[in-house]
Amino acid sequence: MVIRSTIMDTNSFRAEHAAGLDPDTRRLTERRDTVLGASYRLFYRNPVHLVRGEGQYLWDASGRKYLDAYNNVASLGHCHPAVTAAVTAQMQQLNTHTRYLHENILNYTDDLLSTMPAELNKAMYMCTGSEANDLAIRVAKAYSGGEGIIATTEAYHGTSELTSGISPALGTGQPLAPTARLVEAPDAYRLGSTAGADGSELGTWFANRIRAAIADMEAHGIRFAGFIADSIFSSDGVLPGPAGYLREAAEVIHRAGGIIIADEVQPGFGRTGDAFWGFQRHGIVPDVVTLGKPMGNGIPVSGLVAKADVLAAFSDTIPYFNTFGGNPVSMAAAQAVLSTIRAEGLQEHSRVVGGSLLDALRGLGDTHESVGDVRGAGLFIGFELVKDRTTREPHRELALAVLEQLRERGVLTSVAGPHGNVLKLRPPLAFQPGDIDWLVGALDDSLTALYA
Amino acid sequence: MVIRSTIMDTNSFRAEHAAGLDPDTRRLTERRDTVLGASYRLFYRNPVHLVRGEGQYLWDASGRKYLDAYNNVASLGHCHPAVTAAVTAQMQQLNTHTRYLHENILNYTDDLLSTMPAELNKAMYMCTGSEANDLAIRVAKAYSGGEGIIATTEAYHGTSELTSGISPALGTGQPLAPTARLVEAPDAYRLGSTAGADGSELGTWFANRIRAAIADMEAHGIRFAGFIADSIFSSDGVLPGPAGYLREAAEVIHRAGGIIIADEVQPGFGRTGDAFWGFQRHGIVPDVVTLGKPMGNGIPVSGLVAKADVLAAFSDTIPYFNTFGGNPVSMAAAQAVLSTIRAEGLQEHSRVVGGSLLDALRGLGDTHESVGDVRGAGLFIGFELVKDRTTREPHRELALAVLEQLRERGVLTSVAGPHGNVLKLRPPLAFQPGDIDWLVGALDDSLTALYA
Repeated sequence: MVIRSTIMDTNSFRAEHAAGLDPDTRRLTERRDTVLGASYRLFYRNPVHLVRGEGQYLWDASGRKYLDAYNNVASLGHCHPAVTAAVTAQMQQLNTHTRYLHENILNYTDDLLSTMPAELNKAMYMCTGSEANDLAIRVAKAYSGGEGIIATTEAYHGTSELTSGISPALGTGQPLAPTARLVEAPDAYRLGSTAGADGSELGTWFANRIRAAIADMEAHGIRFAGFIADSIFSSDGVLPGPAGYLREAAEVIHRAGGIIIADEVQPGFGRTGDAFWGFQRHGIVPDVVTLGKPMGNGIPVSGLVAKADVLAAFSDTIPYFNTFGGNPVSMAAAQAVLSTIRAEGLQEHSRVVGGSLLDALRGLGDTHESVGDVRGAGLFIGFELVKDRTTREPHRELALAVLEQLRERGVLTSVAGPHGNVLKLRPPLAFQPGDIDWLVGALDDSLTALYA
Repeated sequence: MVIRSTIMDTNSFRAEHAAGLDPDTRRLTERRDTVLGASYRLFYRNPVHLVRGEGQYLWDASGRKYLDAYNNVASLGHCHPAVTAAVTAQMQQLNTHTRYLHENILNYTDDLLSTMPAELNKAMYMCTGSEANDLAIRVAKAYSGGEGIIATTEAYHGTSELTSGISPALGTGQPLAPTARLVEAPDAYRLGSTAGADGSELGTWFANRIRAAIADMEAHGIRFAGFIADSIFSSDGVLPGPAGYLREAAEVIHRAGGIIIADEVQPGFGRTGDAFWGFQRHGIVPDVVTLGKPMGNGIPVSGLVAKADVLAAFSDTIPYFNTFGGNPVSMAAAQAVLSTIRAEGLQEHSRVVGGSLLDALRGLGDTHESVGDVRGAGLFIGFELVKDRTTREPHRELALAVLEQLRERGVLTSVAGPHGNVLKLRPPLAFQPGDIDWLVGALDDSLTALYA
C-alpha cells in the first residue's frame, strides 16, 4: 500500500522484516503472520513481547522493564487495582444490557454529565471510539439534513466504513468519503508565518479554512452537516495551540448550520491538564462529544454525549441498541476511572507533571539542533524533529530512528503528524516526576547516538 | 417512528407509558428519560430492575427470581466464575493492544480456528458484532469489487451506518442502503405450500430468490458483493429449516462472484446443538464468519474469521486497528468461554436439553389452538402464535400479551419475525431440564389466562 500518513503505519513492521529476532519474538511474529489478518501491524523492527504492566511501566518476557510513554488507554496506569476490583465485583454480581433497569448506567451518567457544560445533557454508550464517532456522524446528518463532514488532513476517527471515510490518516488505500472535505490542522509552528502573511491570527486562519471547505461543499451540491476534530489534533501532530483560538471556527460552523463533534478519545478525561475535556481549553461548547480509549482503562467502553435537541433528530427516528454498551460491568469500569481521576487528582497531576516534562524536553533543544518544536498540554506532548531549524524541514527518518533507539533504551512511544516527524508523548497519567529523567535521558542519548 | 418490525421495538416501552409503576421502577425509568438518549428502550410495560444473576437465573431489586429465556450473551450462564476468574487474573497482569506481541491472541486464535473448516484460516478481533459485520461488508466489497449486499427482509446486522443500511429490522426510520437488496427468509411454515406450488423444495425456492435479487442488482448497475445472514434467521422468526438446505443458495452466490458472510452472532458457539457453528448445520463453507454476543459471555469481544485470499483483498490495502480488539483481557475472556463450552459439554447439552424443551413446547399445541408452529435447533427455539391454524394468520397482539404475562410469571424473553408473533426462546446454555417446567408451565398459564 501507499503509505500516506503516519498514524497507522509508520513505526509498524510486518514479521517478514523480522530477521535476526530472538527465538521467542520470531516464534510469536510467525504465529501472528500465520493466523491473523494482514491488517495487524507491530510496533518496532524488533517487536516487544509484553507480559506484565503496572502503573506507567511494562515488562517483557525476559523481565526487562519499559516506560510506557504512549498509552492513553491505561490512563490511570496499567492494571490499576480500582478498575480491576470494580470489574470483578460487578462480574460476580450481574452483567446484562440496557433493556432492563440498572443503577450503574444512571449513576455514571449523572457523574459524567456533571463534568460537562449543562447543554450537553444526554448520554449514550457503545464499546469503541469508532462506534461513538460513527453514531456522532449519523447524528450530524440527521440533525442538519446534510451529508458533508469536515475533518483535518491527518485525522483518524475510526475503523468503521463511515468513520474510515473521514480518516485520511489511514492512507490512500482507504478512499475518502465523497461528501467529506479536509482542512489543514492549525499548526502554529509550521503555519505561524503563513497565518501572519494572511493578515490574520491562527484562529482566524483556521476559521477561514473551514469557511472555504463549507463553500466548496455547497458549490458541489453537498449540504454541510458538521465538523469533527479532537481539540489537540492528535494525529495531525499534537497541536494544542493557544487556549481559546478555536472559538471563531466554532462560530463559523454553527452559523452554517453544522454541528461540532468534539472527539475526546485522545484529549479527554483530564489528559490536557488545563481542563477535564479538550474542548474546554477553548471555551467552546460542542454539540456532540465522543468518548473512548481511557474511559474504561482498557475495558471496551465508549460514549456519546450530546445536546438533547441535536440527539433527538436521530433518536426520534432511528432505533439504536448496543448489546454491550452501558452494561453494568462497562459502567462499573467507567465509574472506577472517573472516581480515580478525581481521587488521585490526575487532571492537576497531568498539568503539573506535563509542564515539567515539557520544560525538560525543551531543554534538549539546547544541545540538539534537530529539535524543532516542543509543545503540549498536560501529559500530551509533541516533540518535533527537523533537518534545519530555519527551514523547519521535517526529519521523518530521524524520528523513526529515534523511536527504535528509544525502544532499545526501554521507552515506548510512537509518532504523529503529516510528515511522521513528531514524537507523540502521551504516557499513562500515572507517569511521575521521577520518570522524566528516564524519558528525557533516553531521548538525549538517542539523538546523540544518531548523530555520533 | 413507524414500527415496521419487531427486533428493536416490539416489547419495548418508553417510560412515559409507565404510570402505575412501583416507586423504585418509576424513579429509575424517570432518571433514564432525563439523562439517556431517547434511543434507549426498555423491555416490558412494567420494566424489570435486575440486580443479580447466576447461571440461567436473574433477581430483581425486590429479591424476586426470574428465568432468563432470552439472553445468548451470558451464554455459559450469568456471572460464570471461569470468565470472571480469567478476566480478573489478566486485568491484574497486563492489558495492552495488538501492536505488541502477546500469546493470548495467538493461543485463542489457534483454538478458535480449530473449530472451523480449514479454509477459514485468518482471524481478526473487534469489540461488537456490529464492528465485525461492518468489516465483513467492507471485505466483501474489496474482494468482489462490487457494492451490492443481499440480506433478508427482517435482518438485523448492526448499529453502524454501514450495517444499519442492511438491517431492515430497524424499521422504516432507517433507510435501506441503495445498493442493498432484500430476500424473504426461507420460512418453511409459511412458505411450505408456496415453495411446493413453485414446483421446488425450500432450498431451491430460496436459491431462486437470491438469483432474482442478484439479477435485480445487475439490472440496476449494482455489482453483487455478497450475501449476509445468520443461518437460523433469528430476526426473521427463528427459522432453522432442514439441515443442509442452504447449499443451493451458497452455490448461486459463489457462481455470481459474491461472498457468503455467516453472521454467527446468534447461532454460534454451540447454540444450535447440531453443530458448533450455525453454518455447519448446512454443510456450507462461508467466506467470512462474524462472531459476537456469546464470545466473551458479556465482555465486549467480537471477531471475524475469513479465508485468507478473501481477507487479503481488504487487508493488503486498508489498515485496520481496533484499540481494544484482541487485547489480552478480551482474549482471556474469549478463551474462558471456549474452554468452558468444551469442558461443560455445552453444545451437546444444548442439543439434548433444547430437544426436550422443543418437545414440551410442542405439547402445548394439544391444548392451545393459538400455537401455530414450534421449531428450533438446540436451545434456540421459535414459538409461533396464530389466530387460526388453517389460515396461519399471525397473532401479534397475543404474542405481546404473552410476553407481559410471562414476565409476571418470572420468565424473561422477547419476540421476532416480520409479524412479531414468534416468541424467541434463547436462554443461556446453563438452562437445565429442571427449568423446562417453569418455562412451559408459565407459557401454558399465560395462554390459558389470555383466553380465559
